[in-house]
Amino acid sequence: MRTIRFRDAMGLERVGQWETQDGHIVVGGQTYDPVEIDILPPATPSKVICQAGGYMDLRKESGFEDRPERPELFMKGPNCVVGHGDAIELPSGKEIVEFEAEFGIVISRQCRAIDESVALEYVEGFTCVNDISNRDDQHEERNWVRGKAFDGSLPMGPVVASPDEVPEDATLRLRQNGTVKQETTREMMIFSVEELISDISQLITLEPGDVIATGTPYGPDTLSAGDVVEVEFEGVGTLRNHVTAP
Amino acid sequence: MRTIRFRDAMGLERVGQWETQDGHIVVGGQTYDPVEIDILPPATPSKVICQAGGYMDLRKESGFEDRPERPELFMKGPNCVVGHGDAIELPSGKEIVEFEAEFGIVISRQCRAIDESVALEYVEGFTCVNDISNRDDQHEERNWVRGKAFDGSLPMGPVVASPDEVPEDATLRLRQNGTVKQETTREMMIFSVEELISDISQLITLEPGDVIATGTPYGPDTLSAGDVVEVEFEGVGTLRNHVTAP
Repeated sequence: MRTIRFRDAMGLERVGQWETQDGHIVVGGQTYDPVEIDILPPATPSKVICQAGGYMDLRKESGFEDRPERPELFMKGPNCVVGHGDAIELPSGKEIVEFEAEFGIVISRQCRAIDESVALEYVEGFTCVNDISNRDDQHEERNWVRGKAFDGSLPMGPVVASPDEVPEDATLRLRQNGTVKQETTREMMIFSVEELISDISQLITLEPGDVIATGTPYGPDTLSAGDVVEVEFEGVGTLRNHVTAP
Repeated sequence: MRTIRFRDAMGLERVGQWETQDGHIVVGGQTYDPVEIDILPPATPSKVICQAGGYMDLRKESGFEDRPERPELFMKGPNCVVGHGDAIELPSGKEIVEFEAEFGIVISRQCRAIDESVALEYVEGFTCVNDISNRDDQHEERNWVRGKAFDGSLPMGPVVASPDEVPEDATLRLRQNGTVKQETTREMMIFSVEELISDISQLITLEPGDVIATGTPYGPDTLSAGDVVEVEFEGVGTLRNHVTAP
């Protein structure tokens, strides 16, 4: 099951199961031509909890050899979220702005202090996330607010796929202008989906629609105006965004 | 003008100007007995942007002698916000949880990349904030998510007072069980209200109801179950909360 949220040609918001038929999208019994709709972010999180360094390869590149004791977290607000097809507008006056392909977990029901054994009961599904990072500020900050939580810094979508659609060893891949720059599988994550939800929820209530961005593998690189960047997550689909100058 | 949000005896949400008359609250032409209402947080922020070390006295205590070049920021989510009279529930298993009295700025209208000269046009007013901090985790984190963004970590209220109600040299005071533990004035802030709004809004859109917590002066100290903690901000009033064990 893949859930899509979009505006139809009249401008009305539609949410439903995405099925394709002869290249068209079928939602709620109606058929839509993909070129006539505006795909919206598939969730509207009250907050996004992100993991830094969720893969050992990138962690080693950052100078750490050991597995961390627990996930390292940071946050993004609702102002960060944009959808499939939206522009990634480079923040003004910054030299190095990079992409980071990530698995996104979308929460289905409010939860707090839940055990790993039941964590998947609170998952609506998975989506593609691009954790756009302004390194100029991130490298000068203790808390990465300017570096990570700026407007439009979290493209996500195009759909939320239910857990049964996404294999345990699902591939995550990022292409910049058609060239593969990042590639890993869900199995390579240091912490599992269940461990992340259980850990975060010990102190922080997760709300329906909240997103956990699970960290990026080796290979983040600089974005330039005119780039097309695609995050492909097996079972979910491809999140495509273009980069514009400020 | 002081805006209060509360549930009346029927459970209906009321928002209006707080005037007192013979010890009663007058909102929207109706009179309410203060003991029969449940005061809610006076704003419902989509995000809270907080400043670390907004006063030179606390900055020196932390080992820094110089004025910072720009505000150091961190974030809290909507799950942090509780109101006047609500319990501050200590997070489970943590040794050192401290209070931090702060001036809170409440945003009135959406704004982005605004100049200091017009920043006050986007301010609804000021409120009392208590930035409850879990030092056990904060001292182990790069980004202070577990340390600062846990449930209930931002009591605020009791009202939002419009800027004309709050003197330039307004006093901020925190009492723990009746003893004054923190005291400063608005004039002692390193960055002004206008500077904070202009700086933050360069990269982050501020939404109506968003709150900027402007940092705490010298004197944060440990909370224990049973404590009563009061943040008094001249022109706003007193935010009172009691502390409970998990």
